[in-house]
Amino acid sequence: MSPVKIAYIRPLDIRHGCIDMGHGAGGRAAAQLIEELFLAAFDNEFLRQGNDGAVFAPPALPPGARLVMATDGHVVSPLFFPGGDVGCLSVHGTVNDVAMSGATPLYLTASFILEEGYPLADLKRIVDSMAQASREAGVPIITGDTKVVERGKGDGVFISTTGLGVVAPGVDIAGSNARPGDVVLLSGTIGEHGVAVLSQRESLEFETTIESDTCALHTLVAAMLQAAPGGVRVLRDPTRGGLATTLNEVARQSRAGMMLQESAIPVLPEVDAACELLGLDPLYIANEGKLIAICAPEAADAVLAAMRDHPQGRAAARIGVVTEDAHHFVQMNTRFGGRRVVDWLSGEQLPRIC
Amino acid sequence: MSPVKIAYIRPLDIRHGCIDMGHGAGGRAAAQLIEELFLAAFDNEFLRQGNDGAVFAPPALPPGARLVMATDGHVVSPLFFPGGDVGCLSVHGTVNDVAMSGATPLYLTASFILEEGYPLADLKRIVDSMAQASREAGVPIITGDTKVVERGKGDGVFISTTGLGVVAPGVDIAGSNARPGDVVLLSGTIGEHGVAVLSQRESLEFETTIESDTCALHTLVAAMLQAAPGGVRVLRDPTRGGLATTLNEVARQSRAGMMLQESAIPVLPEVDAACELLGLDPLYIANEGKLIAICAPEAADAVLAAMRDHPQGRAAARIGVVTEDAHHFVQMNTRFGGRRVVDWLSGEQLPRIC
Repeated sequence: MSPVKIAYIRPLDIRHGCIDMGHGAGGRAAAQLIEELFLAAFDNEFLRQGNDGAVFAPPALPPGARLVMATDGHVVSPLFFPGGDVGCLSVHGTVNDVAMSGATPLYLTASFILEEGYPLADLKRIVDSMAQASREAGVPIITGDTKVVERGKGDGVFISTTGLGVVAPGVDIAGSNARPGDVVLLSGTIGEHGVAVLSQRESLEFETTIESDTCALHTLVAAMLQAAPGGVRVLRDPTRGGLATTLNEVARQSRAGMMLQESAIPVLPEVDAACELLGLDPLYIANEGKLIAICAPEAADAVLAAMRDHPQGRAAARIGVVTEDAHHFVQMNTRFGGRRVVDWLSGEQLPRIC
Repeated sequence: MSPVKIAYIRPLDIRHGCIDMGHGAGGRAAAQLIEELFLAAFDNEFLRQGNDGAVFAPPALPPGARLVMATDGHVVSPLFFPGGDVGCLSVHGTVNDVAMSGATPLYLTASFILEEGYPLADLKRIVDSMAQASREAGVPIITGDTKVVERGKGDGVFISTTGLGVVAPGVDIAGSNARPGDVVLLSGTIGEHGVAVLSQRESLEFETTIESDTCALHTLVAAMLQAAPGGVRVLRDPTRGGLATTLNEVARQSRAGMMLQESAIPVLPEVDAACELLGLDPLYIANEGKLIAICAPEAADAVLAAMRDHPQGRAAARIGVVTEDAHHFVQMNTRFGGRRVVDWLSGEQLPRIC
């Protein structure tokens, strides 16, 4: 990814061209694709180093600070869906995984696996969307890799991103930190991402277009941590498997139970309606711009207020409490006055949702 | 990836089972796959955190030290080849990309994209090979992600790995650092990896089995840097595109030319013979366990001696010099007394070689 131009026979024909096997062979065609498409979109001082890795000055690390790395592959199908595409999703997904350690994300890397024959124009839309998401989040993509597989051995574009972040001293966020009596907060309505992808995949038309909630949550996390230092114990974004699976994971890690209030869990009416039509339960549907926070009881009000003050937490709600439970069950008081166990997602509900 | 067991209906049937879409859905099946296959093989304190990212204490960073990140997708076909497989390759490839900045690699992350129907037994072989390569290199895999795509939308297993490393103060290695008069060193024979993969792919049988040279090069790099502090200017592993393309990249980045001696470039006789048979040029064939180093003239002898003292540099050779050349041509004095331009690889010679 060097700034020195080599003489290509002709510029990349982004409008009409397609990915061919030569774009993955590491020669002149690969260098051209990287320069004219990826480097042009992501342009930054690290990529311009043009080496096998990106070298950077270490971030300021006060005593007690730690680093965090997170990685995520993105194979969403279709690649474009209402409210987003695989490009911005691959930035948001990993920024959020880093943020869920209570960290400030610093840098991203990106590995592309492209299918022969994929239109360059569509790839450019994806890369531009990634670049925009990266700029909006303030987290640059500092190095990358591109591979090409034969037609029928991939599915357009797969993107694996990895993020590096810094956890400030005193921040201790982990799935194992929930304690009985803690409060479970949710940052907003659930189910939009999964329903948006599914409706696109199945060409379903609803009266209102349901858009994915995909977004970067690290500034919301920063606001929450500032509102109640030490008061936030667990952060998790309920992606694959949805809210139900995420809370079961945390219950297991913390060896505790949970008791939720169904009526407190916000769901958009159109998502509710779509789920009813499709036989889906919003509790198990992937989200890409929501988080759950488990807080010390004395911190919950401050954290909730900070969430509601932030654009990504306007509809934040207190949805339940952590309980003592040797079985680590997540239970729910239903809207109709009953009580049920909210189990893990078993098998697949919605494949390739992220 | 938590250590707290959940009750699965039955343990994963690694001997007869296959990947199904449920293994990628983020529910119970996904958790079981991660625990019984990935966590069992890679086991370390970071993975056991069981969170969305791995948190770790920052490495010791003396003033002037820098960090480096590198990422690489691995789509080699076939997945198993003489001398290696996609698993160890995915560790070596990224360890080497980090090392080519003159860095000490610290941690790896891994993102898996699995095809529905892929046998768990083969996946376990790949994961075990990865775990062994990671242990041998001393670079743990600290966090990961697993996605599943439908049959016919992937090709068994794709693995994207990302590495983090530390560059010691005073080390300044970059593709743009070569200067006229510098010496070009090569750590050993070229062409084995590409020929090994190709022979497996095409079911070719040679008299001798040619094995991939895949290995981690970071201890070789450390020995070279110690032998001549400040004397090594460029490091690069000639993977896709081979030695010829790598040297052209460096020539372009450094705005210089190169003059190579064909007779000095070591090639195993069996690789030479296979290339002749297949109509391939070893200069363009991928290597996975070799590096080129461009050194200040006064440092070259010490660096070469250090390479030859290291198991991965026994056959190291001085293969050419950097020249002034406004066209940034890589040229070669041939075995037969002629001279030719060694151009970039154009298009594909061997697709999916790494």
